[in-house]
Amino acid sequence: MSYQIAVLAGDGIGPEVMAEARKVLREVEARFNLDIEYTQYDVGGIAIDNHGCPLPNATLKGCEAADAILFGSVGGPKWEKLPPNEQPERGALLPLRGHFELFCNLRPAKLHDGLEHMSPLRSDISARGFDVLCVRELTGGIYFGKPKGRQGEGENEEAFDTMRYSRREISRIARIAFEAARGRRKKVTSVDKANVLACSVLWRQVVEEVAVDFPDVELEHIYIDNATMQLLRRADEFDVMLCSNLFGDILSDEIAMLTGSMGLLSSASMNSSGFGLFEPAGGSAPDIAGKGIANPVAQILSAALMLRHSLKQEEAAGAIERAVSKALNSGYLTGELLSSDKRSAAKSTVEMGDFIANAV
Amino acid sequence: MSYQIAVLAGDGIGPEVMAEARKVLREVEARFNLDIEYTQYDVGGIAIDNHGCPLPNATLKGCEAADAILFGSVGGPKWEKLPPNEQPERGALLPLRGHFELFCNLRPAKLHDGLEHMSPLRSDISARGFDVLCVRELTGGIYFGKPKGRQGEGENEEAFDTMRYSRREISRIARIAFEAARGRRKKVTSVDKANVLACSVLWRQVVEEVAVDFPDVELEHIYIDNATMQLLRRADEFDVMLCSNLFGDILSDEIAMLTGSMGLLSSASMNSSGFGLFEPAGGSAPDIAGKGIANPVAQILSAALMLRHSLKQEEAAGAIERAVSKALNSGYLTGELLSSDKRSAAKSTVEMGDFIANAV
Ligand SMILES: CC(C)[C@H](C(=O)O)[C@@H](O)C(=O)O
Ligand SMILES: CC(C)[C@H](C(=O)O)[C@@H](O)C(=O)O
Repeated sequence: MSYQIAVLAGDGIGPEVMAEARKVLREVEARFNLDIEYTQYDVGGIAIDNHGCPLPNATLKGCEAADAILFGSVGGPKWEKLPPNEQPERGALLPLRGHFELFCNLRPAKLHDGLEHMSPLRSDISARGFDVLCVRELTGGIYFGKPKGRQGEGENEEAFDTMRYSRREISRIARIAFEAARGRRKKVTSVDKANVLACSVLWRQVVEEVAVDFPDVELEHIYIDNATMQLLRRADEFDVMLCSNLFGDILSDEIAMLTGSMGLLSSASMNSSGFGLFEPAGGSAPDIAGKGIANPVAQILSAALMLRHSLKQEEAAGAIERAVSKALNSGYLTGELLSSDKRSAAKSTVEMGDFIANAV
Repeated sequence: MSYQIAVLAGDGIGPEVMAEARKVLREVEARFNLDIEYTQYDVGGIAIDNHGCPLPNATLKGCEAADAILFGSVGGPKWEKLPPNEQPERGALLPLRGHFELFCNLRPAKLHDGLEHMSPLRSDISARGFDVLCVRELTGGIYFGKPKGRQGEGENEEAFDTMRYSRREISRIARIAFEAARGRRKKVTSVDKANVLACSVLWRQVVEEVAVDFPDVELEHIYIDNATMQLLRRADEFDVMLCSNLFGDILSDEIAMLTGSMGLLSSASMNSSGFGLFEPAGGSAPDIAGKGIANPVAQILSAALMLRHSLKQEEAAGAIERAVSKALNSGYLTGELLSSDKRSAAKSTVEMGDFIANAV
């Protein structure tokens, strides 16, 4: 089989960690006899600098011609003063999600054995560990709902956004959450604000209906405000969390931070034909860019997700994930995951990539 | 001066903790020569049972005739199966907020000296403590925006909610946040999602304009997803957090949970003429209702907020707050604030009330 991948490394640490992901992919291609062709495109701040907009047409066309997008990260202080609409994150990610209808966002987050001390949670709570998959709806809700805009004058000038969800949008993402739960601990927690939002009332209703087809999966509902609280006390009791676009944005970031190891988290954004965008959960980290100390694991795991979900190369994906586990379990870590007394043993970005590529 | 207070004790632990607040108020009245008349009204689940709806007309009329509402808590398993709209919390709180235009919600949350171990945060983080005032807009945004509803059929049936904010609504709550910051550590963090929401773009703009009148107060903006993360690592760096209705709902609950001592947190919801509703931050806690172990401090501090904000009795408010501090500082605590080895020293609801009333 031969595949086309659009590589959008972006800004900050994006290019450095992408280089390591490519290194690991090369090993995997050799070992599993895959024929993958990569084409690089500018995205985000670098695209603003080179072409005047964060998602140039050539980049979009390149993505259209590809089987998947391997995304780095975008943004940085240089572009922070631009109007929100034109900024790298907003101006690249939202159009890509909308254009390819990447409605399904998977954000797995787990507290790794041996890395409990990195979590900002109290030691007796983090000792229990957790492993949560956030399934976030990514092309609906208040992100894309129309009308959205401004009207009026003076004191009465007002802005408005529309949160909007159809049965179709809710049931397709709910199904994915239930399917995913089947391969895990068989529990779905659906997050909403049904005591306030009409969208959440429909959400809850449709999720209940979908649940009928999954009698082996337990379903519970939780309000978003309560969810942010319960995650602090008993994250270990959650398995799959099913969220609308906005609530998933908020909750997945809280969960990511609770792991304390953002540099290990990757995410997949997919449409119904298996095309997807795969990216690390952390940002472009401009403060450490170019220093060779960024953790490439999240980018490498994004490549694994791409192999699994878009290229259907489960074995190759598993090989990468096992190689990463081997690195982490043998204490082969970048500096941000080490306590200050052990920081002298920190591995560089390139060393991490080499180790994982060799372990594949 | 003579005052009328509408007492809405509600469900669960509401009546027990309200009794202690009334006890403390009696002492304060004697000491400061206040003439306060209290009238009790049903609200929430008990009102559903007695009158068929969570906010009976007699209760609303009683509140209209009063100078302030002292609110307990509502809700419980008995009413959980009702449609969201008719449930005690939603059916009582939202109409009260709307009817009296209680646009300004103050939710102070602080990690008390000596209670750091209650926080779910890692010990080195909680050791730094924190003291955050969440200023939440309470009568606008997606809670009350129109249109809100459903339309369409079958797979295309959809629900919609409207987030809507006017300059007037934003500037009046922003002013309150800046005023409050002046009496504290002089920093306002405005929470929004300006990279996605038109409402947030206007929000940010108006907050910037208001800030011009407060050159002595530092202003920063943060996205809601980032805020939920940063609170886990550096809550001590926040002072006043200014939030829209939905974001304030989510963030204030996260912050409350971070203190680990929800039984100590009270909140004030006010309109522009000083009329307000004062309530504990925790819920009705049906699991411990009637056992005499609920912490009455949040309810007692709600009474202090009522004295300060609606009755303008700053001295009386301060006296209650000092009495509460005395109890906490001398380790006079209810069971949920004690580690299990010290739980035998736990004080009852009534003992807490007695101690604080005596200390006034
Ligand atoms: C950059 C921003 C528009 C985006 C979002 O809100 O979805 C980001 O926070 C994310 O979670 O991927
Ligand atoms: C009960 C509910 C409608 C309410 C809200 O969302 O505002 C509650 O969560 C709160 O924060 O006071």
